[in-house]
Amino acid sequence: MIKERTYPSKLLENAVNEFSKLPGIGSKTALRLVLHLLKQSNEEVNLFGNSIIKLKDEIIYCKSCHNISDTETCSICGNPSRDDSTICVVENIKDVMAIENTHQFNGKYHVLGGIISPIDGIGPSDLNIASLEQKIQAGNIKEVIFALSTTMEGDTTNFYIYKKLNKYPVEFSTIARGVSIGDEIEYIDEITLGRSIVNRMTFEMSLSR
Amino acid sequence: MIKERTYPSKLLENAVNEFSKLPGIGSKTALRLVLHLLKQSNEEVNLFGNSIIKLKDEIIYCKSCHNISDTETCSICGNPSRDDSTICVVENIKDVMAIENTHQFNGKYHVLGGIISPIDGIGPSDLNIASLEQKIQAGNIKEVIFALSTTMEGDTTNFYIYKKLNKYPVEFSTIARGVSIGDEIEYIDEITLGRSIVNRMTFEMSLSR
Repeated sequence: MIKERTYPSKLLENAVNEFSKLPGIGSKTALRLVLHLLKQSNEEVNLFGNSIIKLKDEIIYCKSCHNISDTETCSICGNPSRDDSTICVVENIKDVMAIENTHQFNGKYHVLGGIISPIDGIGPSDLNIASLEQKIQAGNIKEVIFALSTTMEGDTTNFYIYKKLNKYPVEFSTIARGVSIGDEIEYIDEITLGRSIVNRMTFEMSLSR
Repeated sequence: MIKERTYPSKLLENAVNEFSKLPGIGSKTALRLVLHLLKQSNEEVNLFGNSIIKLKDEIIYCKSCHNISDTETCSICGNPSRDDSTICVVENIKDVMAIENTHQFNGKYHVLGGIISPIDGIGPSDLNIASLEQKIQAGNIKEVIFALSTTMEGDTTNFYIYKKLNKYPVEFSTIARGVSIGDEIEYIDEITLGRSIVNRMTFEMSLSR
């Protein structure tokens, strides 16, 4: 109701303003979080504040796949038991974590750092596409799997990369699109349902999960 | 679904864990906030992290009312145009801010720092009650207004302080309880509605708002 709040302290106001800049955090929540931290010990508050400063200062992006890492080469790229002939192209770090959590992929990743989105001013040159091409040029890669969001932007990015790189003797694939496991047919959107009929898989394949 | 996440970096994991300790922030939200901060400039991340560290290090509690302050005496206690014969007793700093935002109170505050709550292990000795008594003993105070939550704990605290301090020649009052402005009668809980009939006010009083 009342937008302008009077804070009893500039320091408090400053901290609340900083927290309000976070996505999804309004000034009321920010105040609640700051007052919560204020109740903790000095040590804990220092740990909190420094954890993010240290992360920003010391974080490294893997020189091979651009994933977040503590070392020059990330633990996935540096793992000799992973198949380096298969590369999964993802938008960001969260997608690497999501796919890793499925325990279904044993290849390596390539993090684009975004997807082509003219509205947000992100073009192909803002993404890690050149380094993907270099990897393919160096040989050894057999398959590139696109695992981008199934949105207009994701599809555009898939198509752009495919057009640029399909001159190389590499197989391109994209993660299966269809009905989510556990979905009821009557509630599925028609585009997904329509495509899932057109792109139907053999019954034997469906049993492999 | 999957509880244990594998983070590609210890630094990232550490920052996410720190953010997850905040009330109402789960590990997914924490990751989102941390990755958001990671996209900001070094300067902005330093500002963010240091704002809370600086607040914790430098914050002062007003020696008179225990409100948060940048100076030894807070801006409310130090304001000569405010009536220091009326003291409004509140639980915490947020309540001071809420009442200040109404612009309806021109007296001073006394922040208890909590309310009596045996379940949470908070007894009278944990609250700033002794300093309230000293203020009253020093004379000059005419009225003490209780503005605590209308819960069992709030009522207990009101009653405890009242019993302890009613030997002094001071008037004790509590903020009006009744039907919120804008409420529809049929949806009001019966205790509030019942009390609002028993404790009805003159019609002239209701016009004063």
